[in-house]
Amino acid sequence: MRISELSRRSGVPITTIKHYLREGLLPPGRATAATQAEYEESHVRRLRLIRALIGVRGLSVSATRELLTAVSEHEADTHQMLGLVLGARPVAGTEPGTGKEDDRPGSADADALLTEMGWQVSEHAPAKGVIADTLETLRSLGVDYDWRSLVPYATLAGRTAAHDLDQLDDTTDPLERAERALLLTVLLEPALLALRRLAQEDESAKRYGG
Amino acid sequence: MRISELSRRSGVPITTIKHYLREGLLPPGRATAATQAEYEESHVRRLRLIRALIGVRGLSVSATRELLTAVSEHEADTHQMLGLVLGARPVAGTEPGTGKEDDRPGSADADALLTEMGWQVSEHAPAKGVIADTLETLRSLGVDYDWRSLVPYATLAGRTAAHDLDQLDDTTDPLERAERALLLTVLLEPALLALRRLAQEDESAKRYGG
Repeated sequence: MRISELSRRSGVPITTIKHYLREGLLPPGRATAATQAEYEESHVRRLRLIRALIGVRGLSVSATRELLTAVSEHEADTHQMLGLVLGARPVAGTEPGTGKEDDRPGSADADALLTEMGWQVSEHAPAKGVIADTLETLRSLGVDYDWRSLVPYATLAGRTAAHDLDQLDDTTDPLERAERALLLTVLLEPALLALRRLAQEDESAKRYGG
Repeated sequence: MRISELSRRSGVPITTIKHYLREGLLPPGRATAATQAEYEESHVRRLRLIRALIGVRGLSVSATRELLTAVSEHEADTHQMLGLVLGARPVAGTEPGTGKEDDRPGSADADALLTEMGWQVSEHAPAKGVIADTLETLRSLGVDYDWRSLVPYATLAGRTAAHDLDQLDDTTDPLERAERALLLTVLLEPALLALRRLAQEDESAKRYGG
């Protein structure tokens, strides 16, 4: 297909596609004339993934280029690839130093929770730090909150994650799967919190309503 | 207790307490001398709620004053009070005009989901708009996402909400309950999303790991 068709199919403007070609994010098409090239389906899928990484995950062009290189080395390994795309696993070269141990009490609590759940997650998963931060914040506000109170939430998160991954089953193309995982993870986040607020309102009506 | 003790117990600096007294957020203490007053336990609880509304929910001083007035009218009605504190229910006078109907397809989908779940929620709950926005965004990115895919998430959100409200049972004081509901709702949000990310990584390891 021509670049105009590639733009229509991917939802990315032609000038932006040309920028990605110059920056090496997108491999060149097959030249058919001095100023014309032919693009494939794989370009559409790669462009949609680039759009999600930059527009939804908020990565820079250079971080996206590094990540795409790592992804193409792990295309056959869905687990590795999802970890990279969702940011659970650091791209080689940006791995945090092992000297930076987190020795706050919240961090030990986050580890205890992961052990309790028996979850296999990478040692430097940023989400671990978020849990530690939350426990620290509650403590600083004088709320006596035990990490064990998070166990029911973690159990429900496990079921949520199973439903998340079920939604990847209708495609086998690695890049399409990566894009879908990224969109459904990041973009659903506000909706999942909104569902909790609405469910709380309903539960409150049932418990305390007149 | 003196103002210094009130400050220590609530975690709010003395200058800030004096500001809240002048702004009418906090009722005055019982005067014991020209420049001294005696404060009660109810001042501690009210100050902690004010701190949560301003510091955690991000309300302005005047919005907090309006909300506290509404809360004090509904102190005996836990359902009304939680709706006010969590922002599900508008404070009188700031009710959105009924002329502003949301006629996007995402909005009809959000209504269909609420009907399917049989949830009792207020007509102008902001969380409804968040769900409509999310469905619109996915659609604009070319993802064919049916609102029925949200039903399993909504079911899990119902169980989450039950656990949320269970955690209010250890206090019966309305202001303490309101503060706790606000902290555990808003502050746990990043942690719940982090738990989903970790659960996804674990689920991915189980499904696709080597």
